[in-house]
Amino acid sequence: MNFVRNAWYVAGWSRDFADDLVARCITDQRLVLFRRSTGDVVALEDRCPHRLLPLSKGNRIGDTIQCGYHGMTFDGAGHCVRVPGQDNLPKSAYVESYPIVERHGIVWIWMGNPDFADPDKIFDLPEFTDPDWHAHLGDALHIKSHYLNVAENLVDPAHVSFVHPTTLGNAASENVPVHVSTAGETILAWRWIRDAPPIGFFQNFGNFSGNVDRWHYYHLHLPSTAVIDFGSSDAALSLAEDDRDQGVRIFAIHFVTPVDADNTIDYWMHIRNTATDDEAASAQMDTMFRKAFSEDVAVLEAIHEAEALPQKRKPIRIAIDKGPNVYRKRIREMVEAEATEYLGDPEAPTFVQHD
Amino acid sequence: MNFVRNAWYVAGWSRDFADDLVARCITDQRLVLFRRSTGDVVALEDRCPHRLLPLSKGNRIGDTIQCGYHGMTFDGAGHCVRVPGQDNLPKSAYVESYPIVERHGIVWIWMGNPDFADPDKIFDLPEFTDPDWHAHLGDALHIKSHYLNVAENLVDPAHVSFVHPTTLGNAASENVPVHVSTAGETILAWRWIRDAPPIGFFQNFGNFSGNVDRWHYYHLHLPSTAVIDFGSSDAALSLAEDDRDQGVRIFAIHFVTPVDADNTIDYWMHIRNTATDDEAASAQMDTMFRKAFSEDVAVLEAIHEAEALPQKRKPIRIAIDKGPNVYRKRIREMVEAEATEYLGDPEAPTFVQHD
Amino acid sequence: MNFVRNAWYVAGWSRDFADDLVARCITDQRLVLFRRSTGDVVALEDRCPHRLLPLSKGNRIGDTIQCGYHGMTFDGAGHCVRVPGQDNLPKSAYVESYPIVERHGIVWIWMGNPDFADPDKIFDLPEFTDPDWHAHLGDALHIKSHYLNVAENLVDPAHVSFVHPTTLGNAASENVPVHVSTAGETILAWRWIRDAPPIGFFQNFGNFSGNVDRWHYYHLHLPSTAVIDFGSSDAALSLAEDDRDQGVRIFAIHFVTPVDADNTIDYWMHIRNTATDDEAASAQMDTMFRKAFSEDVAVLEAIHEAEALPQKRKPIRIAIDKGPNVYRKRIREMVEAEATEYLGDPEAPTFVQHD
Repeated sequence: MNFVRNAWYVAGWSRDFADDLVARCITDQRLVLFRRSTGDVVALEDRCPHRLLPLSKGNRIGDTIQCGYHGMTFDGAGHCVRVPGQDNLPKSAYVESYPIVERHGIVWIWMGNPDFADPDKIFDLPEFTDPDWHAHLGDALHIKSHYLNVAENLVDPAHVSFVHPTTLGNAASENVPVHVSTAGETILAWRWIRDAPPIGFFQNFGNFSGNVDRWHYYHLHLPSTAVIDFGSSDAALSLAEDDRDQGVRIFAIHFVTPVDADNTIDYWMHIRNTATDDEAASAQMDTMFRKAFSEDVAVLEAIHEAEALPQKRKPIRIAIDKGPNVYRKRIREMVEAEATEYLGDPEAPTFVQHD
Repeated sequence: MNFVRNAWYVAGWSRDFADDLVARCITDQRLVLFRRSTGDVVALEDRCPHRLLPLSKGNRIGDTIQCGYHGMTFDGAGHCVRVPGQDNLPKSAYVESYPIVERHGIVWIWMGNPDFADPDKIFDLPEFTDPDWHAHLGDALHIKSHYLNVAENLVDPAHVSFVHPTTLGNAASENVPVHVSTAGETILAWRWIRDAPPIGFFQNFGNFSGNVDRWHYYHLHLPSTAVIDFGSSDAALSLAEDDRDQGVRIFAIHFVTPVDADNTIDYWMHIRNTATDDEAASAQMDTMFRKAFSEDVAVLEAIHEAEALPQKRKPIRIAIDKGPNVYRKRIREMVEAEATEYLGDPEAPTFVQHD
Repeated sequence: MNFVRNAWYVAGWSRDFADDLVARCITDQRLVLFRRSTGDVVALEDRCPHRLLPLSKGNRIGDTIQCGYHGMTFDGAGHCVRVPGQDNLPKSAYVESYPIVERHGIVWIWMGNPDFADPDKIFDLPEFTDPDWHAHLGDALHIKSHYLNVAENLVDPAHVSFVHPTTLGNAASENVPVHVSTAGETILAWRWIRDAPPIGFFQNFGNFSGNVDRWHYYHLHLPSTAVIDFGSSDAALSLAEDDRDQGVRIFAIHFVTPVDADNTIDYWMHIRNTATDDEAASAQMDTMFRKAFSEDVAVLEAIHEAEALPQKRKPIRIAIDKGPNVYRKRIREMVEAEATEYLGDPEAPTFVQHD
């Protein structure tokens, strides 16, 4: 299913985790998460090793989880601390645990080899904490589509004119070419639409009415974090590309978390350099983004369904696909690299059988 | 799935198609249809060749369809006329188009090799336009069953006594033998029930109360158009078989369109030689047919479900199956003949992969 | 799917069967049952051999069933007595019939080789008819889980403390060891919890408030009938194990009927030695059992779903699993023994094909 596992994914917002057990599925692994009394969030395999009941259906006892079937109990590291009815704790009585790091109100999880879980590799931006900017955590968008469709869409400025004609795009950009840069671990696609009417978003936010210069910079950080730097400025100012801070500038950030082969969660937030003390502005932007993202969902779910049908002809690629093409190639390479990584001696897979 | 493709199927009634894009699935091919400003209906493959979004989810721009994802645009012949972001139109940027003919308020589509799409082969009847008859387009019945089950049922007079005991059949016909003729491209099953009480249908329509002579002629035109010529006449008249026009005579016509392996649409209509100027009579007959057809749907869906179960024993065949047996054999031969027809050089099938 | 077929299973309560045709599925065989005018219940294969319509969708004509499609008619032994449209009755026109025995308000069915259907092997208890006891037929619990999960749970006293902490168990029993005896065709697991607070059930029924001695004896009769002998007695009496009749004693009986690989019906009833003339007590116990059994359903359905997922590690077994382990081993042996039993000459399986 082409999941990169050696990566930090967003497991949720800090506000999602408190005393309750929370079930999540990330890269097709079922997880249970909770916040310990020490304040840190822990993530365990959501499967009692005995009769497979999800631990998330059990009970939290202090900083442990007690299975809801026979009471086997596991601590936050996944170690079994109790097997009712016997004194010894079998070596095989454990659940996997996953590294977690919490930062800026975001809970990150590492789904791969824990030896490689380096917190310095977690995506970060100085604007998260810069007092001249305002960071606002948005919401979690559940999409019935493969995560590569979702992430690809975020390095694809060309769709904006057609999917979001009244919100994030308009006709002025339909034929403006897209520049693409693919150096390093970030793929960047961008374009400027100069001296054109403002899009719906900036008619509402920024109160532009005359022509503007508008930019879209789509940064896709591998495997699946997107930062869309977009904004507008009065066309009369002829803003230089590097002077974007002088316009109304917004970072729309998408943390794309693969759930399984058919489901994805897009944790989205935004950071802005305007109206930084105005919470009503955050709510207004949330509303506009929700409308635009629902337009994406309709397309992404429809193409996911279409991909499941038999195909008589290979899909074609066109000029605007450069970013998505490079992105999929990079993911393929990362997945292949992980497949050859040493992961310990193999254990024969076994399946539950009623035999 | 045993679809005959070199055939004219009904895609809908003329009234179904106007400015809007209409999605249909016929013989497991997804289609988008619309009526052009020139008045003709066109049918295209409902799949953008770029990212597979159904074109029916896009927008109609004049007599073209613009894909709702990146704006690729196709005319009514399936030719690409625009790829936003680039000047050239790749040769592979097309969608299939399907021949359409509209006649008597019915829209016909040819799903096979377009070279063989001869409009003279479209099913027709002089009574469609005969002023002594009244043709009434009914409705579209969606049935979760294989189309061969649906069509077979229409060359099977024997089921009427048991499936439709209060509408189209009654006990008088239970043991009356069925005659079958299988010459040519039409399979015909028929029987007369002489000097018996009228069925519910003719108690309501025709106002028969005393005994009648009743006939049922089931014509099944391959692959799946059925004309059921049925009627009644006062038993005292001892109507000759060829004098059916002197009785109350109705053609119940079913255009059976295969959707996919599990779904079928039965476009049904009727033509009558009585009350030809009386629209209330049409509505009354619609009501009676709807009741009877819902009885068929219950059976046809149940046997389709049953066929999906493992079978320890082969289904048996009985005397009344002659028409259905010949019908299935003919369809099998037609499908086999198409499989050996030259369809151009083979193209290796490809599937979308996230790799 | 590991169904034992040479066994008497409960097909329902006597009250379930009257004039109407009743559809059931047992060990993945679809059945139609009805009570004949002679008073006995018959069970037939629910599949017309002609076009596969379930006979349960047909009509009862006297003590026969008439198929709802073409009127083929079968008597209570599965013999065809009529084929409309022809005089001869083909040898292949029959449906399987299944031995049925009715006793104590319970309808038993034999799903295997009818030659081995010995009514003396039907589960029975003297307390069903003992005037010092009151037997009350409960209800049918539909569970989306494999029957081995359901039955195993009934020879597993250890789950009670964790699944039913407010009804059938409490914390006092969490660490009390379970004794297991596996001689013969019954697996028995039991334990006494001495001098401990009463469980919720016996706070309501028996009005115990001070400490009690409590027992649980789980008898699992192969393949899947469970009798749970449980009760309480004032702790001051120090009741001997064999004097359980002197306490408040209840037999909770579960007839576990496999429906198919994913579904099970638990027909449950109870017998008690207290308040034997008090129908309100039966209703009170029904209410308490319904609450407790709904707790089982939640667990059993969750583990059934979990078992369908790929498993990277083999489930572990712990000390309390002795009863379930032996039970699954016995079932495996019974299924294997049936597989090598002579079942007549093989008939090649055939499937319905639209070809």
